[in-house]
Amino acid sequence: KKACFFSTLFSPILPTICEHDIKKLIHSFKVGFALFLVSLLYILDPLFEQVGENAMWAIMTIEVIFDFFGGATLSKGLLRGIGTLLGGGLGCLASTLASDLGKIEYTIVVGTLIFVFGAMATYCRLIPSINKRYDYGVTIFILTFNLVAASSLHGDHQVMELAHHRLSAVAMGFSVCIFISLLVFPMWATDELHQLTSSKFKQLASCIEECMEAFLVVGEKESRPIIHVSSCNSVLHSNSSDESLVNFARWEPTHGRFWFCNPWEKHQQITELLMEFASNILSLQGCLKSALQPSSMLLEVIKEPCKNVGLLLGLTMRELGENIMNKKRSNLEVVIMPELQSIKLELILLSTSKLGAIENVED
Amino acid sequence: KKACFFSTLFSPILPTICEHDIKKLIHSFKVGFALFLVSLLYILDPLFEQVGENAMWAIMTIEVIFDFFGGATLSKGLLRGIGTLLGGGLGCLASTLASDLGKIEYTIVVGTLIFVFGAMATYCRLIPSINKRYDYGVTIFILTFNLVAASSLHGDHQVMELAHHRLSAVAMGFSVCIFISLLVFPMWATDELHQLTSSKFKQLASCIEECMEAFLVVGEKESRPIIHVSSCNSVLHSNSSDESLVNFARWEPTHGRFWFCNPWEKHQQITELLMEFASNILSLQGCLKSALQPSSMLLEVIKEPCKNVGLLLGLTMRELGENIMNKKRSNLEVVIMPELQSIKLELILLSTSKLGAIENVED
Repeated sequence: KKACFFSTLFSPILPTICEHDIKKLIHSFKVGFALFLVSLLYILDPLFEQVGENAMWAIMTIEVIFDFFGGATLSKGLLRGIGTLLGGGLGCLASTLASDLGKIEYTIVVGTLIFVFGAMATYCRLIPSINKRYDYGVTIFILTFNLVAASSLHGDHQVMELAHHRLSAVAMGFSVCIFISLLVFPMWATDELHQLTSSKFKQLASCIEECMEAFLVVGEKESRPIIHVSSCNSVLHSNSSDESLVNFARWEPTHGRFWFCNPWEKHQQITELLMEFASNILSLQGCLKSALQPSSMLLEVIKEPCKNVGLLLGLTMRELGENIMNKKRSNLEVVIMPELQSIKLELILLSTSKLGAIENVED
Repeated sequence: KKACFFSTLFSPILPTICEHDIKKLIHSFKVGFALFLVSLLYILDPLFEQVGENAMWAIMTIEVIFDFFGGATLSKGLLRGIGTLLGGGLGCLASTLASDLGKIEYTIVVGTLIFVFGAMATYCRLIPSINKRYDYGVTIFILTFNLVAASSLHGDHQVMELAHHRLSAVAMGFSVCIFISLLVFPMWATDELHQLTSSKFKQLASCIEECMEAFLVVGEKESRPIIHVSSCNSVLHSNSSDESLVNFARWEPTHGRFWFCNPWEKHQQITELLMEFASNILSLQGCLKSALQPSSMLLEVIKEPCKNVGLLLGLTMRELGENIMNKKRSNLEVVIMPELQSIKLELILLSTSKLGAIENVED
């Protein structure tokens, strides 16, 4: 709705722009505005006197955390917070435990700890399950631990004060980020995932319809219509972008259209089934290119059921896509499923009778 | 070779570890060591007196830049360098141009510039082609521009000195990174891509062989052998990880086994063909699950050519995989291609004679 409002606002100036571009523009303005807000910490003298050079950390926080989707911003912010606290705490602990030692021993102990923790955390980052979800948090953890453990050698008191100032600057950046990201024209990964799944159904529906049409025309030896397989390919290759969307959606609060829970696990299952379907359509399309085509005789027999299958499958996919979009339970099970079953039976009967015919000829 | 040396070194302690895990371990030790080295800037007093608090930037650089593959480390380092220089230069320019203005005008101009550049750069980051390759550089550009433009309000001289110190700390971190990443047990994305492509051929070879075996057994109505389709799926889904490997390989110097140029574009073409092949195998496997199977009569006729096709395809894929691994030109074109062509012809003839038989029955 908000994107619509924006699009009508911009439409006189930018007539060819599409909805997704408008979302990108909104995001860019949001980031620009957030950067402007935290830069005020530097620019306005009264604020600068309070915060000082640490304002840098607020700017850095915005730049690093602010992401396109609300869930991504939230997850990065929280991971950064958790990583900083854990790393800082462990760093303080290490320096406190080692503080009784002499200068040389202290240096050796802290150096060894930095090496060991650095290597361990880096190994953790390479484990796929951690890498996918918590990579950023682990990075911040090593960084903070390293900084705190190493700098504690030079005057504890000053370091604590510095850490306090920096943390408050980071907190300022974080709150500006969250406020602008989640409250001003928020973009949710959940919604994007929802739309994407629904649109995949529609894309595959037109694909299967085009394939069936082409099959029947090829049989009739007319000019071959073009099949748009690009949508099949995009469904097949969408795996990793979908995965990151699901990852972000996990962090998003239940909002707007999804009251109880985010159905992201269902989305993944559906995506896998759709990929299987897309790969089937692709090999169907490969069959159309083959030199081996059914004779006009055979085509006459299978034409009607094939056409019906194509139409029904297209209809079903479109209906399912729309029902997912509108979050309605469909009654396809009752209406279309029996019909599809009966056509399947018909095709099997036709084929077996053909095979029987062959065997009779062979005998 | 180096990984082998390591694996023999570790094998008594960690017998079940595989080669990839050893690479991960080596990488972790390298990062730990690099962190330890730059932490010495903090820990050792003579060094700390020289560098001061700016040692932080060296640690941060290591943490952010050091990546698993040499190409990734290089690209991040160079992008960071270019982004910093561009952002810093533009920031200085902006503050110089605005320095003649009064305090209020200056504040307005710098604030507007920060907003505009922030929004523009963020929009650039969302363009897919820039996002894939230069995302990190653009991030650093906005960050540096923002910091320089905003902080130039408070004492130009001090800022320049600060920037100088920070840049030298970053340069120290960068050189430690590059030295350890590229010279000590380097890991190249080019090699990984090469091995991956070769192994995909082998995986698909066993897949097609298993499928053919299962097809013939199913026909004979014995117990169905298990087909490992997981490798087909992994080939189908490897798209995005391959893409990032190609991205890293672009930045890698020609080294070791690749003297003239990195053949990454060829890799992408091969990957796409392999994906098509994998999707065909998957639908072949779908046919095996179907209720509709050839009669024992028909199977007897097509058994021999089908078996041959399976064997030859498997052999070809294996051979191609090995030739890619060893960078040899294969003579498959001469040996196997004519044989495959003749079997294809045989199968087409068989099928058309069947179709003819059907039509005769129909008449």
